[in-house]
Amino acid sequence: MPHPLNPAIAATFAPPVMEARRWLDGVTFSPERPLINVSQAAPLDLPPEGLRQAIAQAALHEPQAHLYGPVLGLPELRAQIATQWSPQYGGSVAPEQVAITQGCNQAFCAVLATLAGPGDEVILPTPWYFNHKMWLDMSGVRTVPLAPGAGLLPDPDEARAKITPRTRAIVLVSPNNPGGVEYPADLIRAFADLARAHRIALIVDETYRDFDSREGAPHDLFTDPDWPDYFIQLYSFSKAYRLTGHRVGAIVASETRLAEVEKFLDTVAICPNQLGQMAALWGMRNLGDWLAGERREILARRAAMAQGLEALEGWDLLGCGAYFAYATHPDPRPSPDFARALVREAGVLMLPGTMFMPDGSAQAARQMRIAFANIDTTIIGEVMARLAALQSKP
Amino acid sequence: MPHPLNPAIAATFAPPVMEARRWLDGVTFSPERPLINVSQAAPLDLPPEGLRQAIAQAALHEPQAHLYGPVLGLPELRAQIATQWSPQYGGSVAPEQVAITQGCNQAFCAVLATLAGPGDEVILPTPWYFNHKMWLDMSGVRTVPLAPGAGLLPDPDEARAKITPRTRAIVLVSPNNPGGVEYPADLIRAFADLARAHRIALIVDETYRDFDSREGAPHDLFTDPDWPDYFIQLYSFSKAYRLTGHRVGAIVASETRLAEVEKFLDTVAICPNQLGQMAALWGMRNLGDWLAGERREILARRAAMAQGLEALEGWDLLGCGAYFAYATHPDPRPSPDFARALVREAGVLMLPGTMFMPDGSAQAARQMRIAFANIDTTIIGEVMARLAALQSKP
Repeated sequence: MPHPLNPAIAATFAPPVMEARRWLDGVTFSPERPLINVSQAAPLDLPPEGLRQAIAQAALHEPQAHLYGPVLGLPELRAQIATQWSPQYGGSVAPEQVAITQGCNQAFCAVLATLAGPGDEVILPTPWYFNHKMWLDMSGVRTVPLAPGAGLLPDPDEARAKITPRTRAIVLVSPNNPGGVEYPADLIRAFADLARAHRIALIVDETYRDFDSREGAPHDLFTDPDWPDYFIQLYSFSKAYRLTGHRVGAIVASETRLAEVEKFLDTVAICPNQLGQMAALWGMRNLGDWLAGERREILARRAAMAQGLEALEGWDLLGCGAYFAYATHPDPRPSPDFARALVREAGVLMLPGTMFMPDGSAQAARQMRIAFANIDTTIIGEVMARLAALQSKP
Repeated sequence: MPHPLNPAIAATFAPPVMEARRWLDGVTFSPERPLINVSQAAPLDLPPEGLRQAIAQAALHEPQAHLYGPVLGLPELRAQIATQWSPQYGGSVAPEQVAITQGCNQAFCAVLATLAGPGDEVILPTPWYFNHKMWLDMSGVRTVPLAPGAGLLPDPDEARAKITPRTRAIVLVSPNNPGGVEYPADLIRAFADLARAHRIALIVDETYRDFDSREGAPHDLFTDPDWPDYFIQLYSFSKAYRLTGHRVGAIVASETRLAEVEKFLDTVAICPNQLGQMAALWGMRNLGDWLAGERREILARRAAMAQGLEALEGWDLLGCGAYFAYATHPDPRPSPDFARALVREAGVLMLPGTMFMPDGSAQAARQMRIAFANIDTTIIGEVMARLAALQSKP
């Protein structure tokens, strides 16, 4: 243990995805049964040729690609988001209400840093996205969990009962990571009304919005002219345009909030990397039809996943959407042990529910997250076959 | 003012470089006398053609360029730093003791997050790098300033007297931003001994090390086999290879420290952007001679700057090196007013000393920082002429 050590970071758990990668150490997989990795929400296919060409051209011919840019991001990209979002959500978003970040995790950290400090509280539905919990832990902010209700939906009444004078925000992720569930628009509206009434912030992380199975706007929050008073939206370019390695995300919030966010981003980032921003802008301008096709493919995988798990003896599907299926498993071992064993016994890497739930949760010991976005319907079938074979062993 | 608002971020000042940019609003510059911007330490020339080609090729042909990588960075880049550093510093650095970050600002934030929390103290010589102060402010860490001694050098005895049970680290920047001064190796060693004796950390930010006027290692800290117990080095690829827009920096520290850093970086970054890392690696492998030429050019500019300011009536040069000259000015107005006036009266944008010193510092009101790396010796002459003309006005 290094010395000196900030107790808040010492108390924060290690990155779950990196921990899971270490489970692979020393395990060999045969060519006939290679590892199927469903642990991370990361496209493995490359961005389309045109986008890669656009990045290469910018590297060669755009001087701005190599220089510092504005702290809050490329003005053209901020404007593009405002231009697309306003009709999509049937509301009003101005370029000055958009900031670009080095990925959506940084968007969350930047926004939270402006909202909450040590001793403050933030309400997080469970199962949660572990990096959200980690940032709250290392900032000394108390996480107030909400229990997963029917269909993994959080309950606004439970949230209301847990609001205290130290509550600063409620955080939703929809479509949800890890739960896969798409929150109904009226549920999001109920949380927004709660936030507005209590003068706290509602943060909605919409990283997976481009793969929502529903047509039209997923919520009506931007239709309220007062949305900047209480609503903060987070977005990621990683999934839509397969740009995980470029680290580009976004915040949509009030201009006054973004003036505070600017302090954080100047200090932690100076600016988002320019090529990634140029790639995101090119994607938004040119890949609308392509993205619609990607969405159809993800929805087909989701259907195969749901069908497969529902047919699987002993498994119970709790949520399925975005890039994830979230389910209870029938193995007698608790989920962390089962997850490790699955690597050797089935050649499948997935994350246990304990990585997404408060310590000691009995539910979590029975739950698993399967990130299915990278595997086509054939391999989804193979996963199901391996899981079925495992359970049928004596 | 947004609501809710974390008081620690509210108390943090706004980004100085962005504030200075706003001084340009509404000011017009004639073609005969264009703006000379010496406010930011940013190369304006592009990276060499070969490096831009390498980035373009990676974007087109390296699948890994577009995918998530390890949290602590590209293994080849970590190894390359270890390989070059060990002989350069006459010591021992292992790849596992290197982490890559989204720029050197993030390196500082990540390291500090592992060291200090609210109520802890960090010792910072003045004039300081403002983003260091901003991170400490927003983290609730108390900044303990050291007075600038002769030649802007900090005094280890003053630091010793200011160490308390809450002190977690001493931070040095050498060559210094904003002061331009190169700290003697024995001064850095004295601070290291102090840190080791008090079981606190010594952080040395060596962003400008490639432009140090001295030959050989700038300090001997890596020659001590126990360096990982107390020493943490920060580095930036932005200046050496003109990669400011790509955001790539590095931390060299103990493996146990980096395990804590990994929690922070996973949460705030997930990973550094891949193309920037590939560019940095290509630069380290191919641009040694080119960088040596860059250094000679910067040292020529530095000489012109020092000569010019020493000849300038009423100005007093306090430090000159790295990308910066730091000097007292003869204008009756305090430095923030003088800096604003310089935009209109001389067509020159530079930052006032108040941006680098504690509030209310009388010294700072007389001081200016001139970031000269972007202007050749001809334009340096022009700056001197404009400043001289200004002072000779009635």
